[in-house]
Amino acid sequence: MITLEHSNVDELKYGSDGLIPAIIQDSRTLQVLTLAWMNAKSLQRTLASGETWFWSRSRRALWHKGETSGHTQKVVEIRYDCDADALLVLVEPRGPACHTGETSCFYRKLPFHREPS
Amino acid sequence: MITLEHSNVDELKYGSDGLIPAIIQDSRTLQVLTLAWMNAKSLQRTLASGETWFWSRSRRALWHKGETSGHTQKVVEIRYDCDADALLVLVEPRGPACHTGETSCFYRKLPFHREPS
Repeated sequence: MITLEHSNVDELKYGSDGLIPAIIQDSRTLQVLTLAWMNAKSLQRTLASGETWFWSRSRRALWHKGETSGHTQKVVEIRYDCDADALLVLVEPRGPACHTGETSCFYRKLPFHREPS
Repeated sequence: MITLEHSNVDELKYGSDGLIPAIIQDSRTLQVLTLAWMNAKSLQRTLASGETWFWSRSRRALWHKGETSGHTQKVVEIRYDCDADALLVLVEPRGPACHTGETSCFYRKLPFHREPS
C-alpha cells in the first residue's frame, strides 16, 4: 500500500482525453521500457498496489501490467516533469515489458548515418 | 546531415493532432531528460540537423531545442516502439534539458511510502 500527498497528485495535468503519458524505466539498468498512458484511476491503482496500472487506448480499459503475462512491474519511484503533464515511473520489472517478449518496447532503431560535416 | 530509410519513417504513427511523443534520454548517463513532442517536420529537421527539433504545443511552433539557451542536444540514436507511436531519442546534451535549469525536466518526485505489507 502506497500513500501519496494529495497536493502532488492534484498538481498533475491530464490531457483533454483524461490521460497523462508515463515513461516506464528500469530502476536498475535505467533502460527505458515503455511509453504508457495513465488516467487518474490507473495512477490511483498504481499507488495503491505498488505495481503499474495503465489505460489501454486500444482496448479503452484499465490494465494491470502483467495481469495475464505475470510480467508485473514493481514501482520504485514516480517523478513528474516541469509542466506536470508527464510521469517517469521507475520500476523493477518481473519479466519483459513488451508484449512481443522484448525487454523494452523500443527494440527497433531508425537507421541513419551521420555524413561527414 | 543524417539520412534515414523512408520505410522506417513511414511506419511511424502520429496522433490525430499530428504529433508523436519523443522521450529524450542522455546517451551517456541514461537519465531521462524530457518528454517532448514531434510532428513530421520536426523529425525531418532533427534528422537533417542531427540536433533535436520539437513541436511546442504551448507556442504552436517548431522549436529547435537550445536555439535561445544554447543547450542543444546532439542526436546519437533514435528508437521507436512496438506500436510505432512513440520515439526514444538518445542524445548528448549541451547543457541542462529543462527551462528551469535542471538537468532533467523530471526533477520532482511524487513522495510516497510503501507500508509494510
